[in-house]
Amino acid sequence: MDENLAVMDEDEVHADRVAAILDAVEAGDAARVTVLMQPLHAADIADLLEQMGSADRGALLALWSGEIDGEILSEISEAIREEVIEALPDKVVADAVRELDTDDVVDILEDLEPEDRGRILDALEDADRVAVQQALSYPEDSAGRLMQREVVVAPEHWTVGEAIDFLRGSDSLPDQFYHVILIDPRLRPVGYATLGRVLSSRRDVALRDIAEDSFRTVEATDPEGDVAYIFNQYHLISCPVVDAGGRLVGVITIDDAMNVLDEEHEEDMLRLAGVGDEASVSDGAVETVRQRLPWLAINLVTASLSAVVISQFQHTISTLVALAALMPIVASTGGIAGTQSLAVAVRALATRDLTQANAARVVRREVLAGFINGLALAAILGAAGAFIFGNWQLGLVLGLAMIVNQVVASLGGVLVPLGLSKMGLDPALASGTFVTTLTDVMGFFAFLGLATVVLI
Amino acid sequence: MDENLAVMDEDEVHADRVAAILDAVEAGDAARVTVLMQPLHAADIADLLEQMGSADRGALLALWSGEIDGEILSEISEAIREEVIEALPDKVVADAVRELDTDDVVDILEDLEPEDRGRILDALEDADRVAVQQALSYPEDSAGRLMQREVVVAPEHWTVGEAIDFLRGSDSLPDQFYHVILIDPRLRPVGYATLGRVLSSRRDVALRDIAEDSFRTVEATDPEGDVAYIFNQYHLISCPVVDAGGRLVGVITIDDAMNVLDEEHEEDMLRLAGVGDEASVSDGAVETVRQRLPWLAINLVTASLSAVVISQFQHTISTLVALAALMPIVASTGGIAGTQSLAVAVRALATRDLTQANAARVVRREVLAGFINGLALAAILGAAGAFIFGNWQLGLVLGLAMIVNQVVASLGGVLVPLGLSKMGLDPALASGTFVTTLTDVMGFFAFLGLATVVLI
Repeated sequence: MDENLAVMDEDEVHADRVAAILDAVEAGDAARVTVLMQPLHAADIADLLEQMGSADRGALLALWSGEIDGEILSEISEAIREEVIEALPDKVVADAVRELDTDDVVDILEDLEPEDRGRILDALEDADRVAVQQALSYPEDSAGRLMQREVVVAPEHWTVGEAIDFLRGSDSLPDQFYHVILIDPRLRPVGYATLGRVLSSRRDVALRDIAEDSFRTVEATDPEGDVAYIFNQYHLISCPVVDAGGRLVGVITIDDAMNVLDEEHEEDMLRLAGVGDEASVSDGAVETVRQRLPWLAINLVTASLSAVVISQFQHTISTLVALAALMPIVASTGGIAGTQSLAVAVRALATRDLTQANAARVVRREVLAGFINGLALAAILGAAGAFIFGNWQLGLVLGLAMIVNQVVASLGGVLVPLGLSKMGLDPALASGTFVTTLTDVMGFFAFLGLATVVLI
Repeated sequence: MDENLAVMDEDEVHADRVAAILDAVEAGDAARVTVLMQPLHAADIADLLEQMGSADRGALLALWSGEIDGEILSEISEAIREEVIEALPDKVVADAVRELDTDDVVDILEDLEPEDRGRILDALEDADRVAVQQALSYPEDSAGRLMQREVVVAPEHWTVGEAIDFLRGSDSLPDQFYHVILIDPRLRPVGYATLGRVLSSRRDVALRDIAEDSFRTVEATDPEGDVAYIFNQYHLISCPVVDAGGRLVGVITIDDAMNVLDEEHEEDMLRLAGVGDEASVSDGAVETVRQRLPWLAINLVTASLSAVVISQFQHTISTLVALAALMPIVASTGGIAGTQSLAVAVRALATRDLTQANAARVVRREVLAGFINGLALAAILGAAGAFIFGNWQLGLVLGLAMIVNQVVASLGGVLVPLGLSKMGLDPALASGTFVTTLTDVMGFFAFLGLATVVLI
């Protein structure tokens, strides 16, 4: 990312403003806080709140809570949303959520405790409350939770002129829409026309004749990850959502899909690293421990496997103590190779570039690449070992162990996520721990085992 | 990702079709290949080509190359694009690129060798060639390369009716547009109106009065990563691109920004794992070795640092060989902790949630979390060590080393990417190797050093 220098400049400007805001908060100067916050976009205000410590955040909200609107509330990350909402007066929360489209209200509600949910639902008008509750009846992380219910539709037999007149007469159009969805008499979407085509066509043209060639819908129960994939794969801008009977129930727009794509990437990256997938820099130390300690504890157990393997070779090590110093090289290089192979495989599974159709070829590729890498590393390490210790057999053992472990690492890096995926599990989850345990155990075993046979 | 089961079903359907296509290719049955390929979307055809082996791909293209159009060409990943283009007759390539918007032609051209570039530029009409060459004059990975030059503009004083009449009269509108950009007499964009607002407003309403509140432009030389960030942060759908004088030169749409975001994530994930950021499952073994071997070789050197540290304690180890078996536990758990801290920090830097404003607080949080994790792990490992070996001093050494290494790991995981970012480098690049080297060296040193003092 070459943009880091530019970002640093912006960061400095931003850091100055943040410092000024913190000063004003400390001085209890509500007027100055309001002036300083004024030019910030809702998304930047949310980031500011996330970046503050909890005490500062509370003080800022006490001075400035009246200004929190729906947009800011929906930008605030899950990590601190609950805390912010609990700090706000009922009326502020009520006014804020009443401005929002249903999909944004659902997004806010789904991560809240029941009592906070109740506060927000009570604030909504009856029609919106029903809509929100209906959305919440869809499975978590489904298209039904993601969609907005405000849709722009036209009967398939309408002309451009009829559609424009209808739109001009509507008093509550959605904030965002990019297509007019064409529906049949049973409310099933049959196609859509982009607003660009509608605007540039004569009034007497039939909407049907300017509908897009390619048209896709998703079902309300489809997982949001599938929806994000479809948007990215087929370059969609919006996508109608249907119920099991094929009737239109809502629409998903690309900005929400982009958000899901972003979150799925975050999950993959954090899970691969063995961190709870909700980790955020705004978490406190205790929350951070809660997310990380479980994987560390599991690693403690798996690392003990290595200790058990090594302890089988105590006699070998006591005969030639240099082995103890050399053995982590084989294990560590294997760990890196496994991580490399794993990252490529997890990414390819996420983008669906790795499927049943090419799995066998990819596995063969990994074995071959692991073997070639192993040969190259074995040549370097073996020669160095033989030279430094004046013992060509030690060099041979280092080299052979390296080749074995590189092949095992490359193979494990692709087979573990493929296997998890085949079992219907997240290929990123715990893969890292499995693979590095494998390469550690195999690295120590191959090296010490060969040393016992060849050297002792 | 709960969608894996559903994906498996689709995979099976798709795998059947791929198998049928491969059979038809082997039989040289061009008609059957055409029938089987017919229902596939351009993006799926590109995926199919990527998932085939190189020989099969060549055979398929020989039978079916006439059907390759611009859309397929622009969907094909960089990894195989050159190979595909070289396999196609000149006329097919020429027809394909002539259909595309300039941004897609630029995207195809930028990764090609000079001779293939020439072939494609020659095929373009003069006006398009000039436009493409102009786009290529912007820096790689800049907004200027990403933008399309086809824009829809209106003078800021126009009414809705004038804009609609103008659009109806245009014969070459872009494939995609979501806003009418308002420009002043010097061609500088001053705002934009969504097509939804244009369509739903009366003909006599001034465009100026329905322009969006929030309006942003990017400069053509801005890095594409910044552009993707702005789209994601401010929920933009399209964004005008201006030159240094503020004049409109093009527009970027959200689908391109989503693509960049996706690629930046891929880069982060692959770089963290120490893989060249162009790695793809369609690469052959040699290409895979070329991407991975450099990092493995670097790791070989850094792992040797651990060996040097351990070899300083040969006397200690030969006195108590069990230490050799136990030392990887401390190092490995430190490696996991460092990786966890690193993943959170790299992600937070990418989303700009970690800035100068909160860096100090995040670093303190990491130290505290590392200390708490260290205490918890030390209690388990220390007690187990003391019990199994019947030696409370060994338990003490294990526990203390664990605490030290957990704090070092958490700290290293955040300081390394922060430092790289501060130096204007990619925080993901090489971070993993730095951090695991640190945790390995510190793990072995703390454990064996303490053992030497306490036990020997």
